[in-house]
Amino acid sequence: MNLDQLLAGLDAASVSPEQPRQQRLYRLLKEAIVDGRLAGGARLPSSRQLAADAGMARNTVLYAYQQLLAEGFLLADRRGTQVASLPQLGRAGIAGAADEMGGVGLSRRAAGLHRRADEPLLPFAPGVGDLNAFPWSSWARHLRKAWGEVSARQLAYAEAGGEPLLLRALADDLRARRGVDCTPEQVFVVAGAQMALDACARLLADAGDTVWLENPGYTAVRSVMLAAGLQSLPVPVDGQGMAPGEELWKSHPPRLIYLTPSHQYPLGAVLSLERRLEFLGRLAGSGWIIEDDYDSEFCHASPGRRPLPAIQGLQSDAPVVYVGTFSKLLYPGLRIAYMVVPRWIARRFGEGIAGLYRGGQAVEQRALARFIENGGLTRHLRAMAPIYRRRQALLRQALQANFGAAVDILGGEAGLHLTLRLPQGPCDREIVRRAAGLGVTARALSDYGVAGPGQPVENGLVLGYGMADEKLIPELVGRLARATLDAVQHPPAQ
Amino acid sequence: MNLDQLLAGLDAASVSPEQPRQQRLYRLLKEAIVDGRLAGGARLPSSRQLAADAGMARNTVLYAYQQLLAEGFLLADRRGTQVASLPQLGRAGIAGAADEMGGVGLSRRAAGLHRRADEPLLPFAPGVGDLNAFPWSSWARHLRKAWGEVSARQLAYAEAGGEPLLLRALADDLRARRGVDCTPEQVFVVAGAQMALDACARLLADAGDTVWLENPGYTAVRSVMLAAGLQSLPVPVDGQGMAPGEELWKSHPPRLIYLTPSHQYPLGAVLSLERRLEFLGRLAGSGWIIEDDYDSEFCHASPGRRPLPAIQGLQSDAPVVYVGTFSKLLYPGLRIAYMVVPRWIARRFGEGIAGLYRGGQAVEQRALARFIENGGLTRHLRAMAPIYRRRQALLRQALQANFGAAVDILGGEAGLHLTLRLPQGPCDREIVRRAAGLGVTARALSDYGVAGPGQPVENGLVLGYGMADEKLIPELVGRLARATLDAVQHPPAQ
Repeated sequence: MNLDQLLAGLDAASVSPEQPRQQRLYRLLKEAIVDGRLAGGARLPSSRQLAADAGMARNTVLYAYQQLLAEGFLLADRRGTQVASLPQLGRAGIAGAADEMGGVGLSRRAAGLHRRADEPLLPFAPGVGDLNAFPWSSWARHLRKAWGEVSARQLAYAEAGGEPLLLRALADDLRARRGVDCTPEQVFVVAGAQMALDACARLLADAGDTVWLENPGYTAVRSVMLAAGLQSLPVPVDGQGMAPGEELWKSHPPRLIYLTPSHQYPLGAVLSLERRLEFLGRLAGSGWIIEDDYDSEFCHASPGRRPLPAIQGLQSDAPVVYVGTFSKLLYPGLRIAYMVVPRWIARRFGEGIAGLYRGGQAVEQRALARFIENGGLTRHLRAMAPIYRRRQALLRQALQANFGAAVDILGGEAGLHLTLRLPQGPCDREIVRRAAGLGVTARALSDYGVAGPGQPVENGLVLGYGMADEKLIPELVGRLARATLDAVQHPPAQ
Repeated sequence: MNLDQLLAGLDAASVSPEQPRQQRLYRLLKEAIVDGRLAGGARLPSSRQLAADAGMARNTVLYAYQQLLAEGFLLADRRGTQVASLPQLGRAGIAGAADEMGGVGLSRRAAGLHRRADEPLLPFAPGVGDLNAFPWSSWARHLRKAWGEVSARQLAYAEAGGEPLLLRALADDLRARRGVDCTPEQVFVVAGAQMALDACARLLADAGDTVWLENPGYTAVRSVMLAAGLQSLPVPVDGQGMAPGEELWKSHPPRLIYLTPSHQYPLGAVLSLERRLEFLGRLAGSGWIIEDDYDSEFCHASPGRRPLPAIQGLQSDAPVVYVGTFSKLLYPGLRIAYMVVPRWIARRFGEGIAGLYRGGQAVEQRALARFIENGGLTRHLRAMAPIYRRRQALLRQALQANFGAAVDILGGEAGLHLTLRLPQGPCDREIVRRAAGLGVTARALSDYGVAGPGQPVENGLVLGYGMADEKLIPELVGRLARATLDAVQHPPAQ
């Protein structure tokens, strides 16, 4: 290769014109050496001569030469400067790698991960509480205080399973509020519910093992299980929660069963006591239940009916991992969730957690522990409960007013969302698309489902009311109805 | 079962004496129903009668009855109260589950995860910088400012790949400082280096794929790969870094190669330019390099020698993921690390990250972006560099003075640790144990190694100087020498 030709590219746009000229010369020469255009052993002109030939300042050339010498791309001897003899990559490697379809793309499992819709954070986006109602100033005070308290030691690698102060506060709270049978040693704090589910998948199951998932169900858990190498089996859900047929127990015995018993996500069923006991009884000694109690903190059951306590507490030492999160209570970005495991496996589970993750968030965890202990969390929950209950009632009324009194509204005994079941006619994704155009966020029920033999994917809308302004609910539901009507009357061309 | 017998256990120690009596009665009855001691259909005495018979307050009985009725364990009819007919678990389930050796323990992969030594955070614990020298007050100011700036929106689910502000700051910094060829779109921020490695393992490889790991090498990466279902292949390391034989390329072609090129962990070799190019050339189109640049921020090479730039920048679009962390620069508990992926896969890699993890840490990421942008990070690095260099020199001198001038000290061109190679005689784990007794932390080199054909596990000590007080280094090394001598002279009975 002719050096002149090479240097002609120095001011070409492709060579990052924002970089200083000496940097560009360095890169240009380096790339030519790496891809073999400047062959090993080739002599380079002296810096003085190259500068004169190419009309550059000598310092520019000196900088590039010195850097390349220091890095081993050039060699200096008595006769001057030569290109080092290095393994050559050629330019083919570049083109090969640039081919997205080549052998070196993402993994097969990566391709199967659920793509989250990039939905705007507007009513009725599900899964979010009212961030404006959160007592930010009190929380900020707790954070500041915790910053003052933690030692440098705690800001180094924290306990992988969570700050002892928080574990204690959580154990006390869960025992009292959810009938969870535990001591602090059984509690593990990790950075979010997804990480908790991931820990369960990898510490309790091996690649190829079968996990039963509710269908329709929480989509993120499908990704977690796929990424962990497990075989997901979608199991239908009825009005009493997950409903596996007798044959499923025999044909696909589960290593893990993932359940949202308090308020099935997204259909809202409460897993019946009979089913809870049946799952426990049939699993004993052969598999695990993951009990995701993701939104049980807000219970809207009528006064006569108490929310069922956690499966975890039904039987001492049962193979159940109870999972909870603070995303909906505080704010999702906090990334603090927890697991409760049986006493007999706690020590070894903790070793596994320490093997998988490094601890962090010492400040946030400490602040949260105090927030729980001094009653701040309970006060916040108490303040929000009637607000959320009212929002749910308004949403229900508005849905009935706009979609007809006989409309099928599912769920609502707990949590922050209702699910509107629609007849198979309208395509829920089309409604969601049109609603977005009207400034309303909703999620399509069909996005939660997996089609299977005897399991058609249901049509509907999953509607979160956690952040919906009460005054606007009727108007927003009106737009939702308009979007639905539009989608029915003008279905997209196939 | 006789109810009297059952109630006799009410004040037994096993029934959580700290709970109120009504709670204990509730639990006692519930457990008896669940395990079948109280059979379905059995009649219970009226609350008044039970209270009288058992010498309890009637309210105590009423509370327990009402709770069990509400939860479905009891049924009320005109004739009184009876036990509901529910699936029975028996007590066998409990005993079965309590057996740690039963079929329902941890997964096989969990059993293989590396157990981290529970070592005290004292000199010479490796992998930690000087936490006392970190500009805490300036950092706290940045955090407070960021808290004021972020919206509720940002405190909800943050961008899974990181705050745009931080991505920009990182791309600028890496281009300038490490020769990394990137735009912000190629940068992904996750909660710690281990999560970054986990993302690479799962997004770039499938269960069963082969990953080459340096031997000896970073132990946590072995756990990450195991948990992701990959087959790890330990590859020997020489003075130029990872040294795979020709036959390995043919017999076990890698899907992933994990490298610590700037300062091999723990032996300290710098991966030569020849090897870097060779790895790139041989992998093209068939696999990925994970370039873990874990401690390149502190370069102690002599002025004439410049640190080699990152492999990532050697060839545009090469299949390299560059990984870095802020653990050692700021503090480990911060949990912020980053990856740089090739341009052509950035969008799809980002979708994968969003499928695997939820974003968080908006405040910390924003604060860090500002800390980088306004020069705070550079100032901190500049202030620490001579301090760490001095500590390394003192450690080296003290090792030579105490272990003999001919002692084999490895590494030191970068980072925060030196590795002392010992002859096969003394057992390094025994030295570590004895040193701990003398208040000195060291890590055994053999803990990093995996024995294999032609790959004996090396003996030695990995010594971090990041947090060592300069005045104490000679005295601490003296104790280390004493522990070594002790271990040689009085080996533990086999």
